[in-house]
Amino acid sequence: MNTAEFRKRGKEMVDYVADYIEGIHKRQVYPDVEPGYLRPLIPDSAPQEPETFEDIIKDVEKIIMPGVTHWHSPYFFAYFPTASSYPAMLADMLSGAIGCIGFSWVASPACTELETVMLDWLGKMINLPEAFLAGKDGEGGGVIQGSASEATLVTLLAARTKVIRQLQAKSPGLTEAAIMDKLVAYASDQMVATLGTTSCCSFDNLLELGPICNKENIWMHIDAAYAGSAFICPEFRPLLNGVEFADSYNFNPHKWLLVNFDCSAMWVKKRADLIGAFKLDPVYLQHHNQESGLVTDYRHWQIPLGRRFRSLKMWFVFRMYGVKKLQEYIRKHVKLSHEFESLVQKDPRFEVCAEVVLGLVCFRIKGSNELNEALLEKINKTKKIHLVPCHLRDKYVLRFAICSRTVESVHIQEAWQHITELATELLKKEKEKKTSQ
Amino acid sequence: MNTAEFRKRGKEMVDYVADYIEGIHKRQVYPDVEPGYLRPLIPDSAPQEPETFEDIIKDVEKIIMPGVTHWHSPYFFAYFPTASSYPAMLADMLSGAIGCIGFSWVASPACTELETVMLDWLGKMINLPEAFLAGKDGEGGGVIQGSASEATLVTLLAARTKVIRQLQAKSPGLTEAAIMDKLVAYASDQMVATLGTTSCCSFDNLLELGPICNKENIWMHIDAAYAGSAFICPEFRPLLNGVEFADSYNFNPHKWLLVNFDCSAMWVKKRADLIGAFKLDPVYLQHHNQESGLVTDYRHWQIPLGRRFRSLKMWFVFRMYGVKKLQEYIRKHVKLSHEFESLVQKDPRFEVCAEVVLGLVCFRIKGSNELNEALLEKINKTKKIHLVPCHLRDKYVLRFAICSRTVESVHIQEAWQHITELATELLKKEKEKKTSQ
Repeated sequence: MNTAEFRKRGKEMVDYVADYIEGIHKRQVYPDVEPGYLRPLIPDSAPQEPETFEDIIKDVEKIIMPGVTHWHSPYFFAYFPTASSYPAMLADMLSGAIGCIGFSWVASPACTELETVMLDWLGKMINLPEAFLAGKDGEGGGVIQGSASEATLVTLLAARTKVIRQLQAKSPGLTEAAIMDKLVAYASDQMVATLGTTSCCSFDNLLELGPICNKENIWMHIDAAYAGSAFICPEFRPLLNGVEFADSYNFNPHKWLLVNFDCSAMWVKKRADLIGAFKLDPVYLQHHNQESGLVTDYRHWQIPLGRRFRSLKMWFVFRMYGVKKLQEYIRKHVKLSHEFESLVQKDPRFEVCAEVVLGLVCFRIKGSNELNEALLEKINKTKKIHLVPCHLRDKYVLRFAICSRTVESVHIQEAWQHITELATELLKKEKEKKTSQ
Repeated sequence: MNTAEFRKRGKEMVDYVADYIEGIHKRQVYPDVEPGYLRPLIPDSAPQEPETFEDIIKDVEKIIMPGVTHWHSPYFFAYFPTASSYPAMLADMLSGAIGCIGFSWVASPACTELETVMLDWLGKMINLPEAFLAGKDGEGGGVIQGSASEATLVTLLAARTKVIRQLQAKSPGLTEAAIMDKLVAYASDQMVATLGTTSCCSFDNLLELGPICNKENIWMHIDAAYAGSAFICPEFRPLLNGVEFADSYNFNPHKWLLVNFDCSAMWVKKRADLIGAFKLDPVYLQHHNQESGLVTDYRHWQIPLGRRFRSLKMWFVFRMYGVKKLQEYIRKHVKLSHEFESLVQKDPRFEVCAEVVLGLVCFRIKGSNELNEALLEKINKTKKIHLVPCHLRDKYVLRFAICSRTVESVHIQEAWQHITELATELLKKEKEKKTSQ
């Protein structure tokens, strides 16, 4: 494909993407396919000769789309949101074209420097203590990781290296293995200190945990993967109080801040702790500037060596929305979850199972777990909306997460009406069954 | 930004990208900026109100481009290539729009199933033993990881879990810590068995290593991050002989197979080994089909939970090029590296320092390391071309890697002429210095 053809096909693809998003509410949110559906539809090996773009784009509609779960449909209420916005998509096109691998400052200075500054911007948006910011000569700073799991793994490894070195400094005779045998990582059943758990979006009390960690010299990592985006709104920021005690903090703008996957933001107070754990310096990656205080080589901050120019997505999104529109977006989602909550509360057959703080409502029919499992199965088989369950203590609970960028009150109302209709059918059948017994 | 504006701006961005790639040879390959250049050029916090797309795209040229190392310039010969092609970029636009997170089969069946089949296609392209393929009911299969480091980490963890379970089955009294204290990972100074090392693209002898690993019950992982793409050409495939002894194999189509970053392909013979190490099954991720033999939940194959729809890039690239054009592309690069090699060999002042097998030439001036360091510094300060060095044993060596999709013989000739001119200047000065001493 030469550049002239790319100009033509690229513009066709822009229209395909725009059509897809504009018409997504008309597509069935969850697909009809059965496991193994795709393999028989395509050849069992790659073609020897080139095929045309027309053939491929036809196959997208014929082979791919029938198997897609439409995460950006306004009828998708499952898991947690994954972010999507036009500015982020535009930035991603640019990032793909530049296609640099920003593992060190020299490998593409703009890639590294924009990332550092964007993490400062975002840190300020959520009013993170200054110690976490890079600024011109701070000891902290931020980095984009691929996921919250990666961020947690990176901080665990950094914490382990730090404590091993501290102990070895005190007792030079100790081997690494002997120390590792004694190390303890404290965690709840959700791991590490968590703001906004996946099951029910609950919050750990950082103001209690923090001082204990500091006193006992325990590395404190806070994961607010989903909830973190809400902290750009002053009314939700108190949930982050206590972050000042943490060594590292992480949340995912790729969940709820309109920056397409992947973009997991992580900050540390002492970047020397991270670099100490991951430093990798073969001669082909060394460069003149690396000892300068101004230079960040992000390969020392993460597990992979390679990295995309992901901060462009943040830059485009933050500028094209502005902080106020981003706050509006978060508030709209929270308002919609409360709208759903009050619909549940008004129906005496249902109960809300956890405090609704942000964009997630956990609810169930007052009754057995089996009944609720049956309700969820009915919902997901009907495929008008899509939800997933969770367990809260021993109860089987339905999760209703506000996900799509384009979801509005009308979709919430429709969803609730649909759920109650299915519940009515189900309860009627249950009653008939009991009567006939 | 509404959909109508996205249609307009998306098409402008397509043209910007096309212009960038079409004119990339006119841009200076390595930037003039100094560390810290970017921060003063942009505000120190995000704007409250939205800004326009025009303003942002102007800033791309003003603020970002002056700090970009142009990896896709035909004058870029540093590190190893990072892949870039129009079909991959088109696929990435689509992937961004679908924006599904494919951690499980239900989360988007097409995302999982296309990946499994594409890894089979690619496995067949490199003539991988059938045990590594998923097929309809194989025990092996492939997965896309973010990077070779991630692939290596995943296989190390899987190997560790496997051996711990084997030992605990034999001696139930053994604790995990006690076993871990005794575990050994064998590696050369490049880690794991490597085909195409970064320094000089050397190859481990798998036919020697493999049988030993199998006999001693050692998990054998082979990393061919860069070189792996070449194995689609029958004439290079013998370098992979011995892969039949391995438990897992990995290479990066995002380096040399025209699939934009990230796309690191990894195969295992027994997928049960991976799943055993990473299985994560909270109720909100469980689904009806997961026990079916046809279903793959890729979250059990990797460290992050989330994942993009990356196999679309492979599908577009394999179909729009076809195997033959991809082979031609690899062969063109190898031919260009041999062209450079023979230029070096014809100049008695220079020597080639390692066998040229694929697209990398390691060379140096016959003389001291200091002289070669001075030459590289001169080259990279002049910024007409961009190279990085390596150490081979005690020698400081210059690496000349064929990188860009658009590099041709004319650029190789220009680059060599430039290098020899700088070398001539340098040697003249050296001689003058010695004469005056």
